[in-house]
Amino acid sequence: MDFSAPKNGFQAIRFDGDCLKLLDQRLLPAQERWIRVETAAQAAQAIVDLVVRGAPAIGITAAYAAVLAARQRGSNLAAWQADLDLLGQARPTAVNLRWAVERMRSQAATDDGLDPDRLLGLAESIHAEDIDANRTMARLGAELIQAGSGVLTHCNTGSLATGGGGTALGVIIEAARQGRVDQVFADETRPWLQGSRLTAWELARAGVGARVIVEGAACALLASGQVQWVITGADRITANGDVANKIGTYGLAVLARHHGAKFMVVAPQSTVDPAMANGQGIEIEERDPGEIWRAAGLDVAPQGFAAWNPVFDVTPADLVDVIVTERGVHRPPFAFGQH
Amino acid sequence: MDFSAPKNGFQAIRFDGDCLKLLDQRLLPAQERWIRVETAAQAAQAIVDLVVRGAPAIGITAAYAAVLAARQRGSNLAAWQADLDLLGQARPTAVNLRWAVERMRSQAATDDGLDPDRLLGLAESIHAEDIDANRTMARLGAELIQAGSGVLTHCNTGSLATGGGGTALGVIIEAARQGRVDQVFADETRPWLQGSRLTAWELARAGVGARVIVEGAACALLASGQVQWVITGADRITANGDVANKIGTYGLAVLARHHGAKFMVVAPQSTVDPAMANGQGIEIEERDPGEIWRAAGLDVAPQGFAAWNPVFDVTPADLVDVIVTERGVHRPPFAFGQH
Repeated sequence: MDFSAPKNGFQAIRFDGDCLKLLDQRLLPAQERWIRVETAAQAAQAIVDLVVRGAPAIGITAAYAAVLAARQRGSNLAAWQADLDLLGQARPTAVNLRWAVERMRSQAATDDGLDPDRLLGLAESIHAEDIDANRTMARLGAELIQAGSGVLTHCNTGSLATGGGGTALGVIIEAARQGRVDQVFADETRPWLQGSRLTAWELARAGVGARVIVEGAACALLASGQVQWVITGADRITANGDVANKIGTYGLAVLARHHGAKFMVVAPQSTVDPAMANGQGIEIEERDPGEIWRAAGLDVAPQGFAAWNPVFDVTPADLVDVIVTERGVHRPPFAFGQH
Repeated sequence: MDFSAPKNGFQAIRFDGDCLKLLDQRLLPAQERWIRVETAAQAAQAIVDLVVRGAPAIGITAAYAAVLAARQRGSNLAAWQADLDLLGQARPTAVNLRWAVERMRSQAATDDGLDPDRLLGLAESIHAEDIDANRTMARLGAELIQAGSGVLTHCNTGSLATGGGGTALGVIIEAARQGRVDQVFADETRPWLQGSRLTAWELARAGVGARVIVEGAACALLASGQVQWVITGADRITANGDVANKIGTYGLAVLARHHGAKFMVVAPQSTVDPAMANGQGIEIEERDPGEIWRAAGLDVAPQGFAAWNPVFDVTPADLVDVIVTERGVHRPPFAFGQH
């Protein structure tokens, strides 16, 4: 595997033989600091704390963490299964996390016990598959974008969110390299600012000029006619094509439709949950309201203050123009339940 | 004038005989600090710096500042006119500012020179009229809201933004007092966080329970069916009913329409610009992109980073269900050019 090729982005998740190293996304872009993870519990906590985030990236992290856990648990399969439960439950909305955990469990079942080397082989495969999928999606998605287009993206879906070059951001960077994209805009993505902290940083590294906006400016931007494509990733895609993704995605899809821009979702097949008929069944994670208060200069919520902080929403399939996976370009009506 | 009656909100602009005192809105809610303003230049800077903001509030501030300037300029009418130019140009989008400045100029023309006492009388009238208008709009707007409704607001439109009890927030607080409103939601309103800093603080003071959300959560909130009315203020309303207001308002209007919620704009007559046919002519202020970077933990924009920071947008009249002024409840088709 060639993890270093710039065309495939960079690595924010590194399996280092006896530990997993994660680029701490809470501190970017001000600081580039790596966190050392040695146990499943530490990995689960890193996922909960958003040291690592992005649906594909947390799946890969969990896979490598399952390898570390297998070495520590030796023949204690029950303890290892409990470690995997912890990993699988670290965040509820993205399906990739549980998908990766279940693949590791299946490997142990096939091996009839814990074989750390074989588990490492699978974790590396999961990682390598994601890199390949990113590359394929970048190519397929970029082809859809006409020269001279403006694009708007949300949250972070680049190398920090995946194993390789990214999903939506991979498409945008590839399209920019092909000269198809004239202007890139990125929502700052409150409350965690994945856009202004992470996507802006990745685009700068990739040499792609971009402008960050507050979410509230997206409508005026779309009305200005500068954006032809809104492109996002996904945390879960249900059989009918409903898309769970970062809070704010649904609004962008409505605004894109209202202004005649197209809405593209880019996500690997591991994001698809064919067993779920539609998005109504998706559990939406709510996080600490302090993510909202602290921005207002408050360490604690004063008397009478409250916040609602859901971190995902569900975009109905009828607002999605195209879903790109590594298997191809999907258009409505979507039917991800049929394989 | 009774400025203290709780029903009419509280005063964030106080003319203190020989100076103007402004509650510094940059520091709320963490600190309640008052700024002393003694000259027109200081008042203009306070408006530029957002010590005081909100279309009606900056108009009132400019009126009182014109009184201070008249005392200082004595018989030097030209110097006073230059002071008023400075005040009128402090911010471009809200029309109330220029409306107040022009009323002060007209008074000087009527008086055939600078009569500080008569100018103070007019400034107090402008302030008192705003308090009265707020009260009338609160009553008219509240009557439109059915019992059991949920409301969502944007930016800050309460006592901090006006001379009295507020525009949109005045309606919401009055409707809550009348038992019409079950739930109040407020956008945090990036980049300046008028919602989480100012509106949340005002609602807490008024004893109205509310929840703050990030702008990205508005679509999921509207889809949940908890909100029947989106209610905002305005910085300028053109003859055809187009509404310039805080960036993000336009998107809320699109999302409200998409989900079957109603969109109400509440603003005094001084916000109406009957000479402007529609919103295309409105100058949209852009502010320091640092308002976006600093939230990402960056003091300066790194190489390759850029931002677009327009602070207002224009909602087309066809997305507005009702405009409430102190003169009445206006419904489409709007015709504010006819008097």
